[in-house]
Parts: sequence; structure tokens; C-alpha cells
Amino acid sequence: MQKKISTATIKRLPKYYRYLGDLLAKGTDRISSKRLSEIMGFTASKIRQDLNSFGCFGQQGYGYNVEYLMGEIGKLLGLQNGYNAIIIGLGNMGQALANYDTFEKSGFKITGLFDSNPDLIGKKLRGNEILNVVELADYVAKNKVDMAIISVPKSKAVAIADEVVSLGIKGIWNFAPVDLELDDTDVVVENVHLSESLMTLSYKITNRGEEA
Amino acid sequence: MQKKISTATIKRLPKYYRYLGDLLAKGTDRISSKRLSEIMGFTASKIRQDLNSFGCFGQQGYGYNVEYLMGEIGKLLGLQNGYNAIIIGLGNMGQALANYDTFEKSGFKITGLFDSNPDLIGKKLRGNEILNVVELADYVAKNKVDMAIISVPKSKAVAIADEVVSLGIKGIWNFAPVDLELDDTDVVVENVHLSESLMTLSYKITNRGEEA
Repeated sequence: MQKKISTATIKRLPKYYRYLGDLLAKGTDRISSKRLSEIMGFTASKIRQDLNSFGCFGQQGYGYNVEYLMGEIGKLLGLQNGYNAIIIGLGNMGQALANYDTFEKSGFKITGLFDSNPDLIGKKLRGNEILNVVELADYVAKNKVDMAIISVPKSKAVAIADEVVSLGIKGIWNFAPVDLELDDTDVVVENVHLSESLMTLSYKITNRGEEA
Repeated sequence: MQKKISTATIKRLPKYYRYLGDLLAKGTDRISSKRLSEIMGFTASKIRQDLNSFGCFGQQGYGYNVEYLMGEIGKLLGLQNGYNAIIIGLGNMGQALANYDTFEKSGFKITGLFDSNPDLIGKKLRGNEILNVVELADYVAKNKVDMAIISVPKSKAVAIADEVVSLGIKGIWNFAPVDLELDDTDVVVENVHLSESLMTLSYKITNRGEEA
């Protein structure tokens, strides 16, 4: 379908998407790779190389059409696919994610909420009722679910991930502090390890100034 | 103080810390680099190289003492320093972070909460009262603040970060979807860009199977 895109380029795609969205909101129609490089902090040649790797969207002397480029990157990211997500684990983090309307603006839809805590089951978040996690299999059988957001405690995360995989869900956004090792390599995982991020900041604070 | 540690090694430190904590919780006293490599998925030679780069903690034929190694890595990460953090922006994400007791288990303390929303000011989260953000400068003058957790909307993030820097806070954990460009290079930043992580997952789902 398209040329092989490097992992580094892929990681930069959401950042391009965000910056292009900011430009569009400011009414910017077109932009040169040079100007984009000044805003984003990558070199202009890296930007040209990135954008060339999935098709030639720029035009010499004109630059890039912001809206078109943003749309193309959005397609690459699958944002137009209307992916449905469920959240398993409605503790602090799960509730914050359930209430996060930014996701819907990016084309994702939170369609199901699951927990095992009787105090949470039946509660509604943005119109969505929290269901008992024992109903998960039945729900997935009846509804299209593209990704599962796992925000359960560490001790339950592996078992929940195994169930999610066995039910045929192909994407996992994992907030539990475990590295999920999945037998089914057809399932993709993206981890958000908040504690590790905080510890990295702590390292930077502790060793501030030693780098330079 | 110590040899120059590579960025890649630094990024792995919190992961070592987490895995060693799991081992300790299971009652494991010592571990070989080989066994650690099987659990963590890095090669044994990378593990030896990582751990050697900040001192020789292993012993040939014995392996590593789990508790000692974890303690040493904790020191490198600054976890024993008892860093105080404030949270600015107590929307969904800020509240989730304020309620996240895992941080305290890792040695961090949330000491102050700030927002500009009158509906939130005065509310208590885990015993901490949300203060009006106009009191921030006064608070920082009177209290030791090592890091600011910024979880305000995108439109306010840059101004808040500038204020945080001007008040002399040296670490920022940024949850707003902006890249903070700080004039004071003495301030360290760690970004958590949730939307970008979600878009990366979306890319992986969309292009599943094309990698192999």
C-alpha cells in the first residue's frame, strides 16, 4: 500500500498532526518545511524526509497545504476509521479517561465501561453506564470493539489483557504498570507508564545540570 | 560524581526499579543478569552494561542482590529525596493524579493543588484543599516545591509553565498537549502526551500486520 515507514517517523506523526491542527486553527493555509521545522524543532530536511516517506505532499516553492497534509496524516493514523474503545477499570485514571472529551474530537469513541467494583457498576459517566466486567465477553460479541483501554490495578492487568485478547480485540492501550506479553502477536499494545515517566522526571531533577 | 550514563540507560532505570520491586515482593533475594534478562526482555549483556555504567553492583557467580540493587537505582532516580509536587489544573486528569496513591509509594508527595475554576477551589482531594491559582506565587515562596504537574487546558499551559519557571520550580511534569519551550534551560520537563499515545495505537491498529 505504502512504502515502509520508519518507527521514528511513525512516532512523529501524531506530533505533525497536532501542530498542523494548531496552524489550521490559526487560519494558516500553507506552510514551508522550513517554517514547520522552526515551529516543531525538527530539521527541515527531516520533515521533508518524513513527509516524503508516505507520499509527496509538498510542492517546491509552495510548501505544504496544511489542511490536506493534516487530512493525509490523519488517514495514516487511522483517525477517520471511527475506532470504538472500551475502558476496563474505572478507578481514578479510568474515570479521567472516560471523561476526556479530547478523544472524541480525534475520532475515537468510548462505547463501553467495565469494572468489578459493585460501588461503580451502574454509575454513569458521560451517559455511559459502567457494566459488570463479567458481561465483557457478551458485550464484545454484540458490539464492534477496536481497542480496550486497560486501567485496572497491576494485579489484575495480565488476566484482563489475556481475556481482551481471547475476545478478539486487536488493540490495547495499557495504563497498568506491567509490560503485557501477549501470545497473540496480532494484537498491538501502547503503554502509558505514568510512574516511569514520573521517575524519569525525578532522575532529571536529581541530575539537573550534569548533562551539559 | 558518576560516569556519564546514556539516555537509553536512563530511560530503562524506572523499568529496572519496577521489576526489582516485583521480585522483592515475591521474596527473591538475588538474581542473575541472565534471569533478569529473561523477565525483562533485554539481553543479559545490555543489563550488565546498564548496571555497570553506574557502578559495579553484581558479583560474578552470585548475581545481583535485589534489594540492594533496587535501593541503588532508587537513589539514582532521586526517589529518596522526598520530592514535593504541586498539581496545577484539577480537571479530570488532575483529579486522577491527585488521587493516585502510587506516587506516594514511590516517594513523591503531592503538597499543593491549584485551579482557577470557582467550582473546584475549596474542594478537598485526599485531604488537600484546592487553592486559587492566584495564590501560587505566595505558596511557592512559603513551601518547598520540587515539581509542578501541569494538567491545565492547552490554551493555558504555556502561560502556567512560564509562571512555574519564573517562581523557580525546576521540574515540570506536563500533561497538556503542547511542547513547552522554556527559556530557563535549568528546568527539566517530562511530557505525557496522551493523545499522541492514543494516535500511535491507532496507527498500529490501522497498519497491523504490515510490519512483519
